[in-house]
Amino acid sequence: MTHMLLLVLDLIGTFVFALSGAVTGVRRKLDLFGVLVLSFAAGNAGGITRDLLIGATPPAAIADWRYLGVSVLAGMVTFYRYSNIQRWRNPVQMSDAAGLALFAVAGAQKALAHGLNPVMAALLGMLSGVGGGILRDVLVTQIPTVLRADLYAVAALAGAAVVVLGEQFHVPLVATTLTGAALCFGLRFMAIRHGWHLPVSRHSGMEDPPV
Amino acid sequence: MTHMLLLVLDLIGTFVFALSGAVTGVRRKLDLFGVLVLSFAAGNAGGITRDLLIGATPPAAIADWRYLGVSVLAGMVTFYRYSNIQRWRNPVQMSDAAGLALFAVAGAQKALAHGLNPVMAALLGMLSGVGGGILRDVLVTQIPTVLRADLYAVAALAGAAVVVLGEQFHVPLVATTLTGAALCFGLRFMAIRHGWHLPVSRHSGMEDPPV
Amino acid sequence: MTHMLLLVLDLIGTFVFALSGAVTGVRRKLDLFGVLVLSFAAGNAGGITRDLLIGATPPAAIADWRYLGVSVLAGMVTFYRYSNIQRWRNPVQMSDAAGLALFAVAGAQKALAHGLNPVMAALLGMLSGVGGGILRDVLVTQIPTVLRADLYAVAALAGAAVVVLGEQFHVPLVATTLTGAALCFGLRFMAIRHGWHLPVSRHSGMEDPPV
Repeated sequence: MTHMLLLVLDLIGTFVFALSGAVTGVRRKLDLFGVLVLSFAAGNAGGITRDLLIGATPPAAIADWRYLGVSVLAGMVTFYRYSNIQRWRNPVQMSDAAGLALFAVAGAQKALAHGLNPVMAALLGMLSGVGGGILRDVLVTQIPTVLRADLYAVAALAGAAVVVLGEQFHVPLVATTLTGAALCFGLRFMAIRHGWHLPVSRHSGMEDPPV
Repeated sequence: MTHMLLLVLDLIGTFVFALSGAVTGVRRKLDLFGVLVLSFAAGNAGGITRDLLIGATPPAAIADWRYLGVSVLAGMVTFYRYSNIQRWRNPVQMSDAAGLALFAVAGAQKALAHGLNPVMAALLGMLSGVGGGILRDVLVTQIPTVLRADLYAVAALAGAAVVVLGEQFHVPLVATTLTGAALCFGLRFMAIRHGWHLPVSRHSGMEDPPV
Repeated sequence: MTHMLLLVLDLIGTFVFALSGAVTGVRRKLDLFGVLVLSFAAGNAGGITRDLLIGATPPAAIADWRYLGVSVLAGMVTFYRYSNIQRWRNPVQMSDAAGLALFAVAGAQKALAHGLNPVMAALLGMLSGVGGGILRDVLVTQIPTVLRADLYAVAALAGAAVVVLGEQFHVPLVATTLTGAALCFGLRFMAIRHGWHLPVSRHSGMEDPPV
């Protein structure tokens, strides 16, 4: 039951992330296949990387065709209905925050289940949430926006940390999952609304000295 | 016997793909080592990624020194005989199509042998064929051309799909291998000759709205 | 004892490599999180890739929180004390050479311990040393400097090769480790001091023919 719920939410998260990849692909003038590749990469790279790192092969996104299915669906919708997607942009941003929240908590749980130490489990939860966006941007040769976006990865880390801490203190899983997801979504929401962001070193962009 | 044949063809495919990596490296003014790295990456990244995803570690390209050998050979030839390679450019394009065809069918067979579901087996076959070119381009900070090239990845997917379908209907392996490879090569050949390509969304390149 | 020593040196290597990632992040105006990610990537990507390729999951850098600890420490120091780091630049270059030397020999030993053939063990040792810098540069969309730097990867390969050859001829491990590390450090030191580098193909940068 809980497992079923997690799978459904996981697939929803994959779908919204895949949308972000597909939009990027269309903007970069990729052909239909290229758009589908970016959809799959954005929606699944985070989870695949996590599964490879914890030794859970083949990764769920490879072994279970449904992850591919929702990724392709998102790519097709974007490719043929791009203007509608554009109209939704803000809703997409919101659902993307929801996907991030869910991937973070689910990723942390999976890492804990594989016996990783708490600190790395939280980081792998974060990685599950942000990995897809990183690969998407590297493939189109952009510096991953997640490295600069307002509290994007930090929100994912906070959500994953709640799950990990809860597990340490034997808090029921459902409670920590909901709390962690809500915290992540809330932080991301506030960051989008109010432009919250992390400090940048006052030395940033200093000239590269001759080497 | 069949296994021996596959290995030989696999190494030939590695060689021709490695040539494409080496040519890219020379054009980007990489030193000898950089050229050899791109040769190995282009020739083996697809197969290595496939093996990691299906849990076959260490990957064949790492465990068997012959994959390294042919990659280095391709890099050396290109580095010291670049002008000859240039003269062959079209033959190389043809043999590259042959390598793509072979990697696609061999990759799909390996994935099926590891018990993956048919859909993912076909995609992993495609990935074996295109992965090397993707890493090659990312390393020199280009948007992977395979995402835009005329029917490149689609040809690989078609070839891999034939192998997977044949396996479902218990068609002899040799028959599906030859048919799949021929289909992939044929599609790629026609795409090069006649510029066949996939549609691009009519919204492509639309301005990125302020976020 | 030897194991303890290797761990300490390994963590020192991770720290100095993480510094290089953090400096890159600050220069590219990444926020605090982005800087920490580049620190971790530069300090650990090489070892993680090696562990994935030899099937040692979860990788040490993921299973052992100390690798994360020193990476974050390096990132924090750089972010808040950038000017001091700049003043050290040359010492950092020297310690980076030391980290490269150590990762190369330790990586080769780990690969041999996992039963890889000698040639691939030497290459995986080299990969452990250079992998971090490659990911660091790809994330900020630069062509990996290691592919062009003066004898950087070649020095790592030489150090790793000493360990592998020593193992073939049953030379005591401590002796080969020290010799290999010294050779790698020495080559890198001379390359920095005297600009030693590998040849570049005289055809480099030739125009890309119309395809």
